Amino acid sequence: MTDRIRHPHFRSKLMPADQAAAQIMPGMTVGMSGFTGAGYPKEVPAALASRMEQAHARGSDFKLRLLTGASTAPELDGELAKAGGIDFRLPYQSDPELRARINQGKIEYMDIHLGQVAQYAWFGFLGKIDMAVIEVSAVLDDGRLIPSTSVGNNKTWLDLADKVIVEVNAEQPDGLDGMHDIYYGTALPPHRKPIPLVKPGDRIGEPYLRLDPSKIMGVVETRAPDRLGRFAPTDETSRRIAGHLVEFFRHEIRQGRLGEHLLPLQSGVGNIANAVLLGLRDGGFEGLTAFTEVIQDGMLDLIRTNTILAASATALSLSPEGIQQFVGNLEHYRRRIVLRPQEISNHAELIRRLGCIAINGMVEADIYGNINSTHVAGTSIINGIGGSGDFARSGFLSCFVTPSTAKDGAISCITPMVSHTDHTEHDVSIIVTEQGLADLRGLSPKQRARLIIDNCAHPSYRPLLQDYFLRACHQSGGKHTPHVLSEALAWHQRYLTRGRMVV
Amino acid sequence: MTDRIRHPHFRSKLMPADQAAAQIMPGMTVGMSGFTGAGYPKEVPAALASRMEQAHARGSDFKLRLLTGASTAPELDGELAKAGGIDFRLPYQSDPELRARINQGKIEYMDIHLGQVAQYAWFGFLGKIDMAVIEVSAVLDDGRLIPSTSVGNNKTWLDLADKVIVEVNAEQPDGLDGMHDIYYGTALPPHRKPIPLVKPGDRIGEPYLRLDPSKIMGVVETRAPDRLGRFAPTDETSRRIAGHLVEFFRHEIRQGRLGEHLLPLQSGVGNIANAVLLGLRDGGFEGLTAFTEVIQDGMLDLIRTNTILAASATALSLSPEGIQQFVGNLEHYRRRIVLRPQEISNHAELIRRLGCIAINGMVEADIYGNINSTHVAGTSIINGIGGSGDFARSGFLSCFVTPSTAKDGAISCITPMVSHTDHTEHDVSIIVTEQGLADLRGLSPKQRARLIIDNCAHPSYRPLLQDYFLRACHQSGGKHTPHVLSEALAWHQRYLTRGRMVV
Repeated sequence: MTDRIRHPHFRSKLMPADQAAAQIMPGMTVGMSGFTGAGYPKEVPAALASRMEQAHARGSDFKLRLLTGASTAPELDGELAKAGGIDFRLPYQSDPELRARINQGKIEYMDIHLGQVAQYAWFGFLGKIDMAVIEVSAVLDDGRLIPSTSVGNNKTWLDLADKVIVEVNAEQPDGLDGMHDIYYGTALPPHRKPIPLVKPGDRIGEPYLRLDPSKIMGVVETRAPDRLGRFAPTDETSRRIAGHLVEFFRHEIRQGRLGEHLLPLQSGVGNIANAVLLGLRDGGFEGLTAFTEVIQDGMLDLIRTNTILAASATALSLSPEGIQQFVGNLEHYRRRIVLRPQEISNHAELIRRLGCIAINGMVEADIYGNINSTHVAGTSIINGIGGSGDFARSGFLSCFVTPSTAKDGAISCITPMVSHTDHTEHDVSIIVTEQGLADLRGLSPKQRARLIIDNCAHPSYRPLLQDYFLRACHQSGGKHTPHVLSEALAWHQRYLTRGRMVV
Repeated sequence: MTDRIRHPHFRSKLMPADQAAAQIMPGMTVGMSGFTGAGYPKEVPAALASRMEQAHARGSDFKLRLLTGASTAPELDGELAKAGGIDFRLPYQSDPELRARINQGKIEYMDIHLGQVAQYAWFGFLGKIDMAVIEVSAVLDDGRLIPSTSVGNNKTWLDLADKVIVEVNAEQPDGLDGMHDIYYGTALPPHRKPIPLVKPGDRIGEPYLRLDPSKIMGVVETRAPDRLGRFAPTDETSRRIAGHLVEFFRHEIRQGRLGEHLLPLQSGVGNIANAVLLGLRDGGFEGLTAFTEVIQDGMLDLIRTNTILAASATALSLSPEGIQQFVGNLEHYRRRIVLRPQEISNHAELIRRLGCIAINGMVEADIYGNINSTHVAGTSIINGIGGSGDFARSGFLSCFVTPSTAKDGAISCITPMVSHTDHTEHDVSIIVTEQGLADLRGLSPKQRARLIIDNCAHPSYRPLLQDYFLRACHQSGGKHTPHVLSEALAWHQRYLTRGRMVV
């Protein structure tokens, strides 16, 4: 197995996971690898969780400040959360055990734009990074590291941490070698220079991660796949949302505002994003590119059929079938995929320069086009803002998509006022539900409200929203953004107390 | 007077303002110059307003879609609003007559990041631009234009409009010649390249605006100063806010997170911003730079004393005394000031690269660090978001400042939930009132709430906020961002009905 570890110093540091985990001390700030379930360390976190449980059984405190790339998996966030070992966590997360404890008030969670985590760490805003625990797919004979299925913040954690534990995962495809592009040209202001990337597929860095060998505290061999589920088959709602967007893109091409190859696509995770990609392919689009965070099965499929010619991301989050597909056509994919640090994949400078078309899911939109991406009823976090803000703010188009209702119709995803704002009225150009699409570009709040209600709200909620809007226009002191303040959050309140937004 | 118009074709188009205004037709989209009261056309708008009034008296409709750089003056926004001649307006505005009609629901207003207006126009998102009305300070013998006291969106309006009316204002200082830097390297995606600016004072363009002579419909000579009032003397509240910020900067220097020359300052308009600048000078800071939107009297003073060595902006908004100071020391200022298009002064790529320290005023912050920059009680717009979002999102530090109360204590500027969100919890690092400073970097919502309440709220509201927060932590279903939804907006509601947030 050790043919993945080709450097003697790394071999000399080989040890079992529990021995490596023993070097992580209570109160440390630890940067771990992992982005949307890809490339997270597979064994050290569980060994660490055991040590935490033992400490707690002895009556000792053992908690960490845990920083990652984005969401990981039950083996990391889940185990550490269950062990009561996380004091503070950032950024994006999606593990149910972790989420539950955040919403119980037991874990402090900071929700931060994925493209800003690395620079905040470099600025010193996140405190000292004591330890990094990073999965890689191999160690070269010169000591450089072949990254794993995600790059995330790994470069930053390796550079900034005092000490480093490396997990070398022999299960990760050999063929990842050469697919990454690690940019070492970042600097702190006032020494920053332009980032020389002008096309999604440009390579501006080097394929390997550097690591000061004196930091290595342990090397752990693992052999376990990323734990990623299968995609649900595309449903009718997703297909209708995708259909509206594809029709809109055609319209924009006819108007001369988009070329036939569109602009680099950014597409959030999940079922609707997948349906949009399939909709583009089935609609005859070709010669597309992607500048996004995550490559999932749907995008892999479009790269296979040459619908997408070049794709940039920070993570390859594939189902077991996706991995098979990937490994079976490695040379094809290697020429078309670039995996970068999330600082670069989500960089405002590049997203604006490239003019990305941002397509992200949401929890709800309000009638004026403010977006809630993160909270239920304003108080419980779901996952986090992820990179949606990086792309929505700086992209060419900022599209937000959702089914018009949730929980079997108990929730309207179009509301009088969002219960939490993640993207403001200033940053939202297109809203789509299965009911239709609202093009908000160049419109005032009241103009937006009429479109959103008429085009996007579910028919069972539409008259109620129209009623709210009309009464607001009539009663509101200020008529720029009319509201009935005493009712603005009432739908959320009723959902909490009576289980439905409107009874 | 015509020695300011050195090109024969421009001379041949000389005409009175009312003749020029007669070429502006009902329903047109018109891009006018003007940014924070500087460089707006002085005569054509009033002549146009007369024509509108005559049309309305005849029973004819006469309204425009009006696009500017930012706020203008009574002679432009005020006259056209009073004449009932504005159908739609963007972006930032501050004229009382215009604001009143927006809040009466008579004018549609779109509040958009100042750094994004130009590209949205180029993308075609704002429709066709029929006419541009642009103030310049002179026309060169080759037909290029010396810009006026603001650049704003003038390059974009001149390039995109079908027809152009130029006002040549002989009152604007001769010495503006050479002070501007108009970047002609922008492009539409996918053809964009890095913007080659790495220091605030860099010149990357040319000093003059280009104009296709075939577009010129009229040239109007004017002689009138920008109408800008004097600054109120710095008051004790502003001085205390400035003091907290200056102390914070010193702390950051001691911690090694800032160098002694800080990073390029962006400072919003008004009294508090002015006090902060004076506080920096009086605190012994030197060798500073500014990358900001507007140079006002306070910053001019710091440039005079070499506290600020280089300043980039899009407008020179000076009081009559400021203009005197400026004209009296032209060579000194010319070497230190660069005026750019607002697309460049407020460009996300550059703000992030330079690492600006963003300092902006606000209407209110809530206990979780969301910021309302624009609305009273969620419904009436004040001015607009301006460039605060451009700088808050992409800067090194995002500071928001306000007195802790307004309206003689009837309003707390720290509330349970903002009534309108312009900057989300993800984009705010420092909040300052005269009571103190809350450093929110790296904190979860509940950690932020404790700091904001303890450090920033006024003592008369602090116990009420503590009570709200404690009850929210206890009652809230989700405890990530605890709220009592039925009370979250009650302070705003009470202000509307009873004239005080808490009775």
